[in-house]
Amino acid sequence: MPSDQELYAEILEFAYTVAEQASKLILDGAAARWKNADFATKKNAVDLVTETDQAVEDFIRKAISDKYPSHKFIGEESSEGKEKPVLTDDFTWIVDPIDGTMNFVHANPNVSCSIGVMHEKRPVVGVISQPFLNRIFSARDGNGAFMNRTVPLPLTGGIPQPLNSLSQCLIAAEWGSDRRMETIQVKLDSFKRLNGDPNKGVDGGVMVHALRTTGATTVNLIHVAAGELDVSWDAGCWAWDVAAAAVILKETGAFFAGGQELYERDAPIDEVVFGRRYVAIRAVAPTAEESSEQIQRRLATHLYSVVEEWTTPSMM
Amino acid sequence: MPSDQELYAEILEFAYTVAEQASKLILDGAAARWKNADFATKKNAVDLVTETDQAVEDFIRKAISDKYPSHKFIGEESSEGKEKPVLTDDFTWIVDPIDGTMNFVHANPNVSCSIGVMHEKRPVVGVISQPFLNRIFSARDGNGAFMNRTVPLPLTGGIPQPLNSLSQCLIAAEWGSDRRMETIQVKLDSFKRLNGDPNKGVDGGVMVHALRTTGATTVNLIHVAAGELDVSWDAGCWAWDVAAAAVILKETGAFFAGGQELYERDAPIDEVVFGRRYVAIRAVAPTAEESSEQIQRRLATHLYSVVEEWTTPSMM
Repeated sequence: MPSDQELYAEILEFAYTVAEQASKLILDGAAARWKNADFATKKNAVDLVTETDQAVEDFIRKAISDKYPSHKFIGEESSEGKEKPVLTDDFTWIVDPIDGTMNFVHANPNVSCSIGVMHEKRPVVGVISQPFLNRIFSARDGNGAFMNRTVPLPLTGGIPQPLNSLSQCLIAAEWGSDRRMETIQVKLDSFKRLNGDPNKGVDGGVMVHALRTTGATTVNLIHVAAGELDVSWDAGCWAWDVAAAAVILKETGAFFAGGQELYERDAPIDEVVFGRRYVAIRAVAPTAEESSEQIQRRLATHLYSVVEEWTTPSMM
Repeated sequence: MPSDQELYAEILEFAYTVAEQASKLILDGAAARWKNADFATKKNAVDLVTETDQAVEDFIRKAISDKYPSHKFIGEESSEGKEKPVLTDDFTWIVDPIDGTMNFVHANPNVSCSIGVMHEKRPVVGVISQPFLNRIFSARDGNGAFMNRTVPLPLTGGIPQPLNSLSQCLIAAEWGSDRRMETIQVKLDSFKRLNGDPNKGVDGGVMVHALRTTGATTVNLIHVAAGELDVSWDAGCWAWDVAAAAVILKETGAFFAGGQELYERDAPIDEVVFGRRYVAIRAVAPTAEESSEQIQRRLATHLYSVVEEWTTPSMM
């Protein structure tokens, strides 16, 4: 019997190959789209999806079931509108074929394909490719995280950079697709506090270095793993947006947690992965006074106190 | 005597080589930074600059003055805090050595080096490199625009995609470094109207497809030229953020204009370039009813009516 670690290594190698093939399908799908101007619609104008999304998920699901017939599968396209998927101790592949669908529709390169594997309710293998940028990030439990197989993460030479306070952070802030006034107002208030100068009239202002919006949760989380963003914070996304990233983040030394309630009771990782609210903070160099984790938890606690959590219709 | 077009071709070739060398300096500067944790500060915590910024501008300025001693030079680093530069009919190089300095400090790849040339007060040559993404965009007057010398823009196979209304747009929206309550409020109001669903309580809501924030004007404009963003709209940036992009945008069929006042009186391009407010709309396929430019002008007019222009301290 192979050990779990040997199994994870084999699964990672297979997942990496699948991600490479899926990336090619995504690039081919894009090239085909430029010759066909129709925009397929899903739900509303903001919630677009393309045929490629479904085709890529079908390809990935079939590849997995051919190779590992006993493994479970949870995918964005096949899960949508269905009951909440139940996670067991079995090997479970959790896949978002194209995260950043809106970017994909608009030819924006912030698109990724995310393939995660959970085992005994823990994320153990993760591969996220950015087809338009020729970057593939991967990790398996306990074995480090890499870009394009060999470049260690974070991309700052494999060295975590210092980070002392929330005010020094570059933070991912997403508007999302829920455009009701109440949701937008929660975000406006949170973004105002994050951005605003407390000395220039902004109540509770933190004056962070800057906010960035890529439009794709996996892309934000990969940026955090790579050390290209300091903090990602979002609500309303799904397990398939974070399952692969959870492994990659952990293996870089990044912090990954759920919403405030899950964080405060130190919820198990499967609850976090399925919890619909996510905070990630990049790997941080320790100081003489604080360990890396102490700094990350101090920043997370500060973040929870500044931003207001929101509830999208699908979370009700 | 070579013709103007022959001169422009020679200048483009030279500018491209300079951009390649500058990109290498930027990558080397980044690699050196990861070993040195100090954050140099300029003005305030949000307005960071690195030694690399100055070194790259020095390199570019010297390369130009060695090759073209009679040409004028306007650069971000050498212009800052000085009187408004005066543009003449002479060849004038307008350079931002590192746009997206805050991204550069945070190891975020949305960084570019922008080298534009104006002649007789018109942008005639532009090169913008994205060192961390291995992309160089270039154009000269009347000769098309390309990525990495050979790939035609827009990147949608060289084919402009349709675009019918502002509500279908992916729009660049930048928070900027001015964090006073009054400026932030103007942006919050504008972003709310752009994002919000008019049927769900948002007065004047347009419900655009999405807002994106890269943190670098040149990156946004390159995305528009590439067809990776539909609209970019910003105030407070400078001629060196747009001089190179203005040529590249024009050569892709994109629309480029200043603030509403300049747009309405059809101001000459040098006023637009130095006007501190900028709107860009990507190349759009014409329809049976409207030409590409008619569609772009309709979208621009709608945009001006939805967003509120803001004035940063440096514009007063």
